[in-house]
Amino acid sequence: MQTLRSTARSMKALTPVLSSLSTSVKNAALAAMAAAVRGQARELAEANQKDLDEAEVVGLEKPLMARLKFQGEKIEGAAEGLEALARLPDPVGRTLSARELDRGLELYQVTCPLGVVAMIFESRPDALVQMAGLALKSGNAVILKGGSEAKHSNRALADLLHRTAVKAGLPEGWLFLAETREDVKGLLELGDFVDLIIPRGSNEFVQFIMKNTTIPVLGHADGICHVYVDGNADIEKAVPIVVDSKTQYVAVCNAVETLLVHRDIAPFLLPPLRMALEARAVQLRGDPETRKYLPGIAEAVEQDWETEYLDLILSIKVVGGVDEAVTHINTYGSRHTDAIVTEDRATAEKFMGAVDSANVFWNASTRFADGFRYGLGAEVGVSTSKIHARGPVGLDGLVIYKWKLYGKGQIVADYAGSNPKSFTHKELPNSGAAR
Amino acid sequence: MQTLRSTARSMKALTPVLSSLSTSVKNAALAAMAAAVRGQARELAEANQKDLDEAEVVGLEKPLMARLKFQGEKIEGAAEGLEALARLPDPVGRTLSARELDRGLELYQVTCPLGVVAMIFESRPDALVQMAGLALKSGNAVILKGGSEAKHSNRALADLLHRTAVKAGLPEGWLFLAETREDVKGLLELGDFVDLIIPRGSNEFVQFIMKNTTIPVLGHADGICHVYVDGNADIEKAVPIVVDSKTQYVAVCNAVETLLVHRDIAPFLLPPLRMALEARAVQLRGDPETRKYLPGIAEAVEQDWETEYLDLILSIKVVGGVDEAVTHINTYGSRHTDAIVTEDRATAEKFMGAVDSANVFWNASTRFADGFRYGLGAEVGVSTSKIHARGPVGLDGLVIYKWKLYGKGQIVADYAGSNPKSFTHKELPNSGAAR
Repeated sequence: MQTLRSTARSMKALTPVLSSLSTSVKNAALAAMAAAVRGQARELAEANQKDLDEAEVVGLEKPLMARLKFQGEKIEGAAEGLEALARLPDPVGRTLSARELDRGLELYQVTCPLGVVAMIFESRPDALVQMAGLALKSGNAVILKGGSEAKHSNRALADLLHRTAVKAGLPEGWLFLAETREDVKGLLELGDFVDLIIPRGSNEFVQFIMKNTTIPVLGHADGICHVYVDGNADIEKAVPIVVDSKTQYVAVCNAVETLLVHRDIAPFLLPPLRMALEARAVQLRGDPETRKYLPGIAEAVEQDWETEYLDLILSIKVVGGVDEAVTHINTYGSRHTDAIVTEDRATAEKFMGAVDSANVFWNASTRFADGFRYGLGAEVGVSTSKIHARGPVGLDGLVIYKWKLYGKGQIVADYAGSNPKSFTHKELPNSGAAR
Repeated sequence: MQTLRSTARSMKALTPVLSSLSTSVKNAALAAMAAAVRGQARELAEANQKDLDEAEVVGLEKPLMARLKFQGEKIEGAAEGLEALARLPDPVGRTLSARELDRGLELYQVTCPLGVVAMIFESRPDALVQMAGLALKSGNAVILKGGSEAKHSNRALADLLHRTAVKAGLPEGWLFLAETREDVKGLLELGDFVDLIIPRGSNEFVQFIMKNTTIPVLGHADGICHVYVDGNADIEKAVPIVVDSKTQYVAVCNAVETLLVHRDIAPFLLPPLRMALEARAVQLRGDPETRKYLPGIAEAVEQDWETEYLDLILSIKVVGGVDEAVTHINTYGSRHTDAIVTEDRATAEKFMGAVDSANVFWNASTRFADGFRYGLGAEVGVSTSKIHARGPVGLDGLVIYKWKLYGKGQIVADYAGSNPKSFTHKELPNSGAAR
């Protein structure tokens, strides 16, 4: 992987330039990129048509064809996404803490870009545009690896975005399109130059990435989410929350896969819930106790508790209370999003404290777990890891901080030995700018 | 590794209990542990004496013997460390952000423990006490793996601390002492249960850990730190900063290894600096230009730029300006701590922005890079990675956050389709407590 390695090395060397770009240069570049995408809409659509034609020939599945399509509205949407990024506050250069260590010796903890981020994604060419914009706004160089089925679209987009941004003041080489399957393997070994990998794709794919690199990975494999309906739940809330969590959009990571129901409420909740779910073609699978209340539904077996259906299927289990629900979730869940429905605040707080997941909800649909709904402005991804960023991750997930110490010649020897000077450790007004 | 794996699995299951411990229970446990360490000082000293006797027999090196010793003042110091931890604010349960998504739908980003942290350290038994205290205060279960040369001390301490904390309200099994070399290998594969590994030891050891696990690692291998003396530097500041950075404590990661000097100031700075450094027995190695001003010193070769001497040796290179200094540091440095000496603020800001290191200093000694001097209260370690925590890391490095959403039955379908409700996305007063 000499080529990709040397490319990544050069990209790493751009860190000083990219981290010092002014907000106005970055925003102007995003605006220029949006204009270029609009201006070249026809050429981009033509490139995409080549991919679509080739996909037709090899018989790509319908849903993948839909994701591959990058025409008309989708092109306009990508341009608007870049303009929206330009309007977000700059995540770089924010002061997280400020402390006087001694008179004339001031310490600032200031956000800065990670350096080089790599994103590996499947067919959707719009993901390329979004990730290029996120990287630019956060001052990172970016390696993009798309699916080979989108190669004409990706090449046209990467070339256009790179070129346009360079004209607007970005350094040559800030964006690189990796194209081969070998590049993915090569990427995983570039720990010296790549600071973060963001994989988007199937569970198996994401898990493969996570298990085969020592580079930090921002993402999630499974989304096995739960709703627990407590004994004190309001059934009028519980039914729509379960229906929405399951059916509002079924093929996503924050859709519910397993419903846990308190024994006390099961006879009252389950029959009306069944009607509402079956009206939306949801197949139910239940443990023995559930099946007493819902005769005729399929049996849920051990494997159901650890399956992300991504389909109109819901497994149901009756439990004795919040503790059993928490244990089930922490055992079988994927630490993504889990909700409790209850009228009892103490039980809700207990659940939200004890469930070891990125998102824990009280009386709300699991489908709210999303960067847009959270108001993050832009979503880099959803993380189920616990390092750096968790849950929906916005631009903040692409920056880290450095400690800047401003002195007047101080040395440590004066603070040691006999008659040492002491530290004042006084918090300074955290003005949002490093003095 | 069935044993360690099942132990780790049980520890992971303690997360709900540990994360919900009240601050007062945790602080009382820390106080009880401090009292127990003091009360059992004689027994602990006796256990340690066994280690010292065995080390004597196998001929352990002097510095290692000193680190292994855990008697008298060191025992009292460990007890005081636990008391100091009790006085620090609780890192768990802090609200990082609070946002109304819509009326009656409130999102809180609240800190919580990581879950299970593992620390692998060499001889020093005081590290065991410190890490046990840090884990307890941050609500984490902890796996400790010490060196076999300290096995009697570690067993006595781990048993005492575990037992005392359980009496004070911690759950059985919150602390586990791993003892075999195989345990280390086993640990690296416990990604399902262990959330963070903190290695302390030689560079080779830390590097081995980092390269052989997909579990996040908090730590640093090399500490190749630089001081760059700019053309506009005040020589009265530069000389003591370089001397302090090199000699104040030579065998540590934040000591300077390479000095970069601007061509314009080299003839004026280098001769007096040589006198000051040689007075403290520092050996100098220089590039050809340095050796013009410092005749007779050894030659610095390529390998010097990438060597952490941890010794009274300093390599020196003359550079043309701040850009060349930054490039050298980003190429050869270890992203730990680098300082500029200059009277020109713009140059200092440029250097601090462009150097890709955890700690970047202006007119101050590199030796200030330290959790105690930074006022963090307690130091978990120094991180040169860019994920989660960077530079000196305090208790904050042992927590992450979760997103808590408080609703009244809201579903996503109402915010989609035709005539959708809109989000308000209004920042809420961030009170420091999740409502």
